[in-house]
Amino acid sequence: MATVKLWTDTEAEAHPVVARVFADIRATRKTDFINNFWRALANHPDQLDRTWAQIKDVMTGPTTLGPAVQEMIYIAVSVANSCTYCVHSHTAAARAKGMTDDQHAELLAIVGLASLTNHLSTALQVPVDPQFQV
Amino acid sequence: MATVKLWTDTEAEAHPVVARVFADIRATRKTDFINNFWRALANHPDQLDRTWAQIKDVMTGPTTLGPAVQEMIYIAVSVANSCTYCVHSHTAAARAKGMTDDQHAELLAIVGLASLTNHLSTALQVPVDPQFQV
Amino acid sequence: MATVKLWTDTEAEAHPVVARVFADIRATRKTDFINNFWRALANHPDQLDRTWAQIKDVMTGPTTLGPAVQEMIYIAVSVANSCTYCVHSHTAAARAKGMTDDQHAELLAIVGLASLTNHLSTALQVPVDPQFQV
Amino acid sequence: MATVKLWTDTEAEAHPVVARVFADIRATRKTDFINNFWRALANHPDQLDRTWAQIKDVMTGPTTLGPAVQEMIYIAVSVANSCTYCVHSHTAAARAKGMTDDQHAELLAIVGLASLTNHLSTALQVPVDPQFQV
Amino acid sequence: MATVKLWTDTEAEAHPVVARVFADIRATRKTDFINNFWRALANHPDQLDRTWAQIKDVMTGPTTLGPAVQEMIYIAVSVANSCTYCVHSHTAAARAKGMTDDQHAELLAIVGLASLTNHLSTALQVPVDPQFQV
Amino acid sequence: MATVKLWTDTEAEAHPVVARVFADIRATRKTDFINNFWRALANHPDQLDRTWAQIKDVMTGPTTLGPAVQEMIYIAVSVANSCTYCVHSHTAAARAKGMTDDQHAELLAIVGLASLTNHLSTALQVPVDPQFQV
Repeated sequence: MATVKLWTDTEAEAHPVVARVFADIRATRKTDFINNFWRALANHPDQLDRTWAQIKDVMTGPTTLGPAVQEMIYIAVSVANSCTYCVHSHTAAARAKGMTDDQHAELLAIVGLASLTNHLSTALQVPVDPQFQV
Repeated sequence: MATVKLWTDTEAEAHPVVARVFADIRATRKTDFINNFWRALANHPDQLDRTWAQIKDVMTGPTTLGPAVQEMIYIAVSVANSCTYCVHSHTAAARAKGMTDDQHAELLAIVGLASLTNHLSTALQVPVDPQFQV
Repeated sequence: MATVKLWTDTEAEAHPVVARVFADIRATRKTDFINNFWRALANHPDQLDRTWAQIKDVMTGPTTLGPAVQEMIYIAVSVANSCTYCVHSHTAAARAKGMTDDQHAELLAIVGLASLTNHLSTALQVPVDPQFQV
Repeated sequence: MATVKLWTDTEAEAHPVVARVFADIRATRKTDFINNFWRALANHPDQLDRTWAQIKDVMTGPTTLGPAVQEMIYIAVSVANSCTYCVHSHTAAARAKGMTDDQHAELLAIVGLASLTNHLSTALQVPVDPQFQV
Repeated sequence: MATVKLWTDTEAEAHPVVARVFADIRATRKTDFINNFWRALANHPDQLDRTWAQIKDVMTGPTTLGPAVQEMIYIAVSVANSCTYCVHSHTAAARAKGMTDDQHAELLAIVGLASLTNHLSTALQVPVDPQFQV
Repeated sequence: MATVKLWTDTEAEAHPVVARVFADIRATRKTDFINNFWRALANHPDQLDRTWAQIKDVMTGPTTLGPAVQEMIYIAVSVANSCTYCVHSHTAAARAKGMTDDQHAELLAIVGLASLTNHLSTALQVPVDPQFQV
């Protein structure tokens, strides 16, 4: 279904960069599970390396928002960008990091309402108030 | 610049629905300032009424996320939907509700990274892992 | 402000393809006014020719929907694609072709609501009901 | 496949808000069929209630455009927002409300052409003509 | 799965416009294979005719970029527009026209990075430098 | 107009990370000009550092596509994501790196046509042909 092959563990172990990144994903996340995004990205080892470095930095490093809120913001962007895979993976991640059903409901209420007012503002071409300027 | 006229306070006061909504916005937000979005939406009083009712309900009612996080999610969606007005108004609102510079930086880091992996996932057409299914 | 120059009438008249298309726009629309979209597109005469041919065919030919409804659908797409210029030009066109204020209000109500449920459906990854399949 | 469970009728009947909304959907649409969007949204009863109230108000209330045209505008937005579920459900709804094959063809011609000129206008960054300003 | 039926060769041969376009696709591409996009579009023969004419003109005519680069640009747009079908079909086409794995990796690196900086620029509402104006 | 302040050279020099990145941009691009994107991003020095590192790596490193084609792909994504700033800055960059007017015309022809068929494919929900599967 993917436009590239999904790398097996055996294939990953034979490539030094991919092997290193997969090992780091497993160590950082404390699980043996490597999801398909990384198995697809392994076809481009430099991109895999660069992308994982950013995810590790932004999503597992120090945070003022907390891990569940981080994932909720990730879901919001993924929904607006219509990314099926990302909605699934980050909804699962948000739950694993503590998002409650009530928080999920509140997230969806905001995402839905934002899209509504985004489209209305664009349709009306509302000029930015001077009060909102920095 | 808008595709409709922006209602002045005098015009608003002459229309019962618009007058009621404007008064409620002022009372709820504890400010005399009515931003242009509502002044544009006033051309369609029913839409104004329905939209404000939702904003009031979702963005000023009970919240498990807190007002600043709510606004940050709103910004995330508005960025992904390329809504100039909304990015300005909700960045101002998030700051007014306590978003710090560090939180703004963290928000942008997640929004940027999410858009990157959204596009990569779509380009690779990554199949959803069974583990992410409910 | 454009990424290309906007062609004046004098420049247009000196280029046979551009001159022919501009003349046809004027004749078809029964106005001397050539809006900036065509003046920008004139930098690429083949694209100008091909695009005008389609606009003329689709938007001024036989229609089962009527000219105002056609323009309202055009606005809906332009809003969802965040095209500032197109929202302005097609809102003006819809009005010129008879869209009333009530119809504009109804259009915005549908556009806003559709974007709301679009985002909710994507966030929930709702599976398509068998009843909706052809 | 959804990120939430789809509520069965038995589950819906046990929750007063969900039961009331499902009953109203059935009564309003004069069918026993409840499509998956509502079964997914039932996980968030307030959102279900608020969303159905709007759909009922906008899509089944008084209209100057007519039910088929309303659904065609809904399709146009759903296509531009890449919402798979919504394209399916509203194409089915438009047909049920009388959209003919010729109207579907005309709708697609406009949606396709609008996306083409939306992208061209954005690429050229065409400045809005003073004539289009309100 | 489609919202319209997919035309078989037998059905296509019975309709003069569709038969002519299908024959031209086969002759131009030197293959008997007609992919589903055209089989779906056949429901609207005029749209089929007009769309194929453009594809033939733009994608198989004289090119300063070369066929593989043309398809890579097509992929980039299709990813940003979240078009599942188009990502699949144009990735296959790019490979058939000579896109190497290294070029695919480079394409994805640019697409991903562009989406990242697109979202950052929109979030920051960066004003266009005078140096970039034409 | 931005949602953050734009850093002056004096401010940049006082911050070690920002000063280092600005110096590297100037050295890499062989120009004293620092465009507004970096002056806005300077508010978040880590993000500035990480983003410039990627741009430098992807857009100024070894390339199989060539600098002008890289920028054209960047434009294509920026157009589809409706990023005003990015369309301006990367159109200027593409020209500086050798994109001719004919190549610009060809780029726009592909971007426009891709958006047209993206929307048609989504509206028709065309199923992916088995021949396109890896």
